[in-house]
Amino acid sequence: MKAVIQRTFGSVDVLSIAEVPKPILKPRDVLIKLKSIATNPTDIKSRENIVNGPALTDYKILGWDGVGIVEAVGSNASFYKAGDHVWFAGSRFRQGCNAEYCAVDERIVGKKPTSLTWEEAASFPLTGITAWEVFFDSMKIGKSDEGKTILITAGAGGVGSIAIQIAKKILKLKVIATASNPKSIELSKRFGADFTIDHTKNLEEQLNALGFKTVDFILETNNLERNLETFGKIIAPWGRIATIVNGAKIDPSHLLALFSKSVTLSFEMMFTRSAFEVDMERQKEILDQLAKLADEKVLEHRAFTVFPSVSLENIREAHRMQESGKTHGKIVLTADFI
Amino acid sequence: MKAVIQRTFGSVDVLSIAEVPKPILKPRDVLIKLKSIATNPTDIKSRENIVNGPALTDYKILGWDGVGIVEAVGSNASFYKAGDHVWFAGSRFRQGCNAEYCAVDERIVGKKPTSLTWEEAASFPLTGITAWEVFFDSMKIGKSDEGKTILITAGAGGVGSIAIQIAKKILKLKVIATASNPKSIELSKRFGADFTIDHTKNLEEQLNALGFKTVDFILETNNLERNLETFGKIIAPWGRIATIVNGAKIDPSHLLALFSKSVTLSFEMMFTRSAFEVDMERQKEILDQLAKLADEKVLEHRAFTVFPSVSLENIREAHRMQESGKTHGKIVLTADFI
Repeated sequence: MKAVIQRTFGSVDVLSIAEVPKPILKPRDVLIKLKSIATNPTDIKSRENIVNGPALTDYKILGWDGVGIVEAVGSNASFYKAGDHVWFAGSRFRQGCNAEYCAVDERIVGKKPTSLTWEEAASFPLTGITAWEVFFDSMKIGKSDEGKTILITAGAGGVGSIAIQIAKKILKLKVIATASNPKSIELSKRFGADFTIDHTKNLEEQLNALGFKTVDFILETNNLERNLETFGKIIAPWGRIATIVNGAKIDPSHLLALFSKSVTLSFEMMFTRSAFEVDMERQKEILDQLAKLADEKVLEHRAFTVFPSVSLENIREAHRMQESGKTHGKIVLTADFI
Repeated sequence: MKAVIQRTFGSVDVLSIAEVPKPILKPRDVLIKLKSIATNPTDIKSRENIVNGPALTDYKILGWDGVGIVEAVGSNASFYKAGDHVWFAGSRFRQGCNAEYCAVDERIVGKKPTSLTWEEAASFPLTGITAWEVFFDSMKIGKSDEGKTILITAGAGGVGSIAIQIAKKILKLKVIATASNPKSIELSKRFGADFTIDHTKNLEEQLNALGFKTVDFILETNNLERNLETFGKIIAPWGRIATIVNGAKIDPSHLLALFSKSVTLSFEMMFTRSAFEVDMERQKEILDQLAKLADEKVLEHRAFTVFPSVSLENIREAHRMQESGKTHGKIVLTADFI
């Protein structure tokens, strides 16, 4: 099969398209013929090995957002059959889906929403699972929290743009998103943000100007190191902060404010379940829930940049755009390899 | 009235007993004639100003564990009447209860359990509220968690000894406590620990030797800075850690392991509700729940060191014992001032 591969870590130049063997299925795997794929910040981090992955001994296939058709199932797999239309985010510790075929454990695969195109559907899995896990598994936001306030950083970004929708439409929270340019502001509001503030300016002052002294929840998708001190000031006593950014570079003295307010800080890593093989079917359950909500038009797709094929030039350009941090919504590629 | 006061920060030498005015009631206060008081680590931190409190402009009364009889109520207080037997932990931002009388907001006062002596009852409020808030408000441990594992550090300490009981008897968790000497080990087991391990030795190796590769929950009561790296290794994916120690001195690179496992870290500060005046009646509710459980003999008192009066020598000695970190259970003083 054809795949986007790399043999060393580095810039977009390490990416190439090559002919490699089709994946061999493990007992609970399904083999998926890809129809569409999307990029995520983790592609860039993996390509450059910012995530501190193991040294490359062979080629590596990136990509953790796939939609396609089941072609075969493993000896012990029972959830899907050939011909099923499915979507998944996959495991960071296996070969990814920037290829014609991908093998994925059936427990982290869901049925694709029927009303979306392949490309529209590819905008959901990784960021949708991330936001869902953050809200329901980590922060444990529930019915009794309706009407409370949440600040979501980078509202027009991959996770931000789905998180706003879930926070507003499902959890019925009052949503303040950060956005710094007219297009981001427009998108954040379209997804459901009640207010936007500019993350390049003083967050506390802008919140106060909107009439909020504190917020009950914060979802940090962008720069915990820069924002943590401010979060200590604006989070409510007993508030909850979740971050999809690791805390390795924070100034720990900024945790004092969280302590004095009895705040909870949740780290969210979408690959935890597949990496440690714990409670993996929860991701299938989340994907099925997202599919239902997408089909019911509660959640809107965010495939705003669509490349019509996977050429070397297209995948490198998709990476460059992802790397810029300035794109809106999701970057998607139709999985026709040329 | 008589009170233990200090006019400067420092060692036990700054403590003295003096005649000071009875407190003036705010509208929602109750005036309580103290019958028994207990010490806590926060007394030491406040006395030395490790908690970075405001400079002393007048005398300061320490003490945040009181049991006594209501003598008067404020103009807008309705929960209690003169003669009621009550208990409380109070507010760190007001004068404490190392005195003959203390004024406390009625919303953070509960009815004393009827079956306990004054001294037995004094062993509960601050640490009981802390453990209850940790489990139910921060970690949100519930029915579905029965049978999961928790590691509690310093099992024979003030918070540890009540936390073990709640974790074992109410939450039905499997409890591993740390304890480093025969008396601590015996007490930890008596309170309900299924296993003890020695916190002066390698925690991971000892857990593994007991057959636990990971634990689902951790309650840190002692030294987060020292233990955080180990916690990253022994916490289960999606596990929850709560700490009653601030994180200001941790090495933030140790947070990477929490991130990769999608762990939640809760900071617990018993004084948050009274300091920020949020949801204060929750503390009354918790105290009433603790009283019920004490009267039903589900929870055992931990008044292991009882001074029969508050003399200057006794209060200083109680502080020295509390400071040593080597005592078991709680240090209590009958509130007869001499």
